[in-house]
Amino acid sequence: MPEFEDLIQAYQERVNQALKIALPPINNSRLVDAMHYSVLNGGKRLRPILVYLSSELGKTETSIADAAACAVEFIHCYSLIHDDLPAMDDDKLRRGKPTCHIKFDEATAILAGDALQPMAYELICSLDNLPDTTKISMVNSLTKACSHNGMVEGQMKDMQLNKAVSVDALDLMHEQKTGRLIEASIELGGLIGGLNSDELLILKAYGQKIGLAFQIRDDIIDVESPSSESGKPQGSDAMKEKITYPSLVGIKESKIRSQELAEEALEILTSLNLKTDKINSLTSYVVTRNN
Amino acid sequence: MPEFEDLIQAYQERVNQALKIALPPINNSRLVDAMHYSVLNGGKRLRPILVYLSSELGKTETSIADAAACAVEFIHCYSLIHDDLPAMDDDKLRRGKPTCHIKFDEATAILAGDALQPMAYELICSLDNLPDTTKISMVNSLTKACSHNGMVEGQMKDMQLNKAVSVDALDLMHEQKTGRLIEASIELGGLIGGLNSDELLILKAYGQKIGLAFQIRDDIIDVESPSSESGKPQGSDAMKEKITYPSLVGIKESKIRSQELAEEALEILTSLNLKTDKINSLTSYVVTRNN
Repeated sequence: MPEFEDLIQAYQERVNQALKIALPPINNSRLVDAMHYSVLNGGKRLRPILVYLSSELGKTETSIADAAACAVEFIHCYSLIHDDLPAMDDDKLRRGKPTCHIKFDEATAILAGDALQPMAYELICSLDNLPDTTKISMVNSLTKACSHNGMVEGQMKDMQLNKAVSVDALDLMHEQKTGRLIEASIELGGLIGGLNSDELLILKAYGQKIGLAFQIRDDIIDVESPSSESGKPQGSDAMKEKITYPSLVGIKESKIRSQELAEEALEILTSLNLKTDKINSLTSYVVTRNN
Repeated sequence: MPEFEDLIQAYQERVNQALKIALPPINNSRLVDAMHYSVLNGGKRLRPILVYLSSELGKTETSIADAAACAVEFIHCYSLIHDDLPAMDDDKLRRGKPTCHIKFDEATAILAGDALQPMAYELICSLDNLPDTTKISMVNSLTKACSHNGMVEGQMKDMQLNKAVSVDALDLMHEQKTGRLIEASIELGGLIGGLNSDELLILKAYGQKIGLAFQIRDDIIDVESPSSESGKPQGSDAMKEKITYPSLVGIKESKIRSQELAEEALEILTSLNLKTDKINSLTSYVVTRNN
């Protein structure tokens, strides 16, 4: 899908521009330096792309979509900075570059994550041309994704996993750690696009499928893609004895599962009476990408 | 002021009750255990009391004031958990009990802080009987207090302080680290009390004075109060060679400064055409308390 990859690249460039503007200006603060370093490091920007694509199912202003896209990426970046810390996953490289606590120090990394989280809510609150009710729904959606029931509990579970874990428990961990923020990204897009509550429910159901499919594909890429393509050492999960889909059910079953989830996700989208061609393409892309 | 101390105790009990209800129920999650442990540890609850007192300058419902009081305390507790971490202030005791990372572990402490922050915004969003515009103003006020210009930058500066620091630079550090959340607490109270924008501006100016006065008094207590009264080892700042008001300008000057700030704060309150007797008493209490 080379054409669709061009589109993805265009969205990535768009959100990268928006992120540069949304970040606090460089001002001799080590904290702000660390925030810039960690946010502007060439991520895939899947969550912002989901904001854009779901907002385009309805109608929205460019500036509003950009702010929502930046908000979800700020949350994602904060979570990566904290997950990389020595007390957690102890990762020294991310996307081929030193992680925040290696480049700066642990205290700065903790604080950079701490400062990125409220910026997400602040960005949403500061949006003009959007009803306050919509802004409250957006803040609410993001806080739920970030809560003790969402991303943070998912990371707790991930650290506590052992080899006897069931597929259901692994599903729940991924649903919390990765899925909730992906669902919130799609919901934010739908909210600013002005979709109605039935449409939002459909989008959330879609988000649940695609979130898990995305995570399984990530685990497959770790096994199969050479470092030059994926940007991280091939087989790093296995080296760390990380519990993943491939380690639990094998690579073949993992591929089947991610494909099935993508098909279920596409099926859900058919019940939306909206122009879903771009989001359909993204769904297929998520489970076929190699990085 | 024994009568006023009774009133403070009543507010403390009220917010402690509200915090128990606002926390997620214990559910076999180590994360939730850590959140309970760190929030329900007998803090002074100054920020919630400021919410209550400033909300009572206007009119507000009990449930709304409780939620706002819990929100500011969640933020305060998250910041304490992170500030205590080995990479930051490396504190092993807080209020006479093991800090969160000692009782649990570092990863759990980082995540417990991370989960408390969004709960503050979520609490505000979930308030019925409050106009959305007010909720947005409240979220906005809290995010600014928590941002790279507020509490988080203040903690960065605190770790970078050296003995050559000027009083102005120390003021700015305290203003960011402690003052901004105190100001936001007063602002939240004023917002839910329905005060007008002029009154809110006056309250914010008051908050700036009382925030700094509170911090200086804290430093004095560290020097003067026996552990049995203050709940922490007497002279712990000096032992850690921490830069404080007393270390910089001496204990006598520190007392004069905190008294002056309290007088300026009281003077500001006179321009409010509202019944300020309780908040006046609090102002005097802040700079005379011994714990």
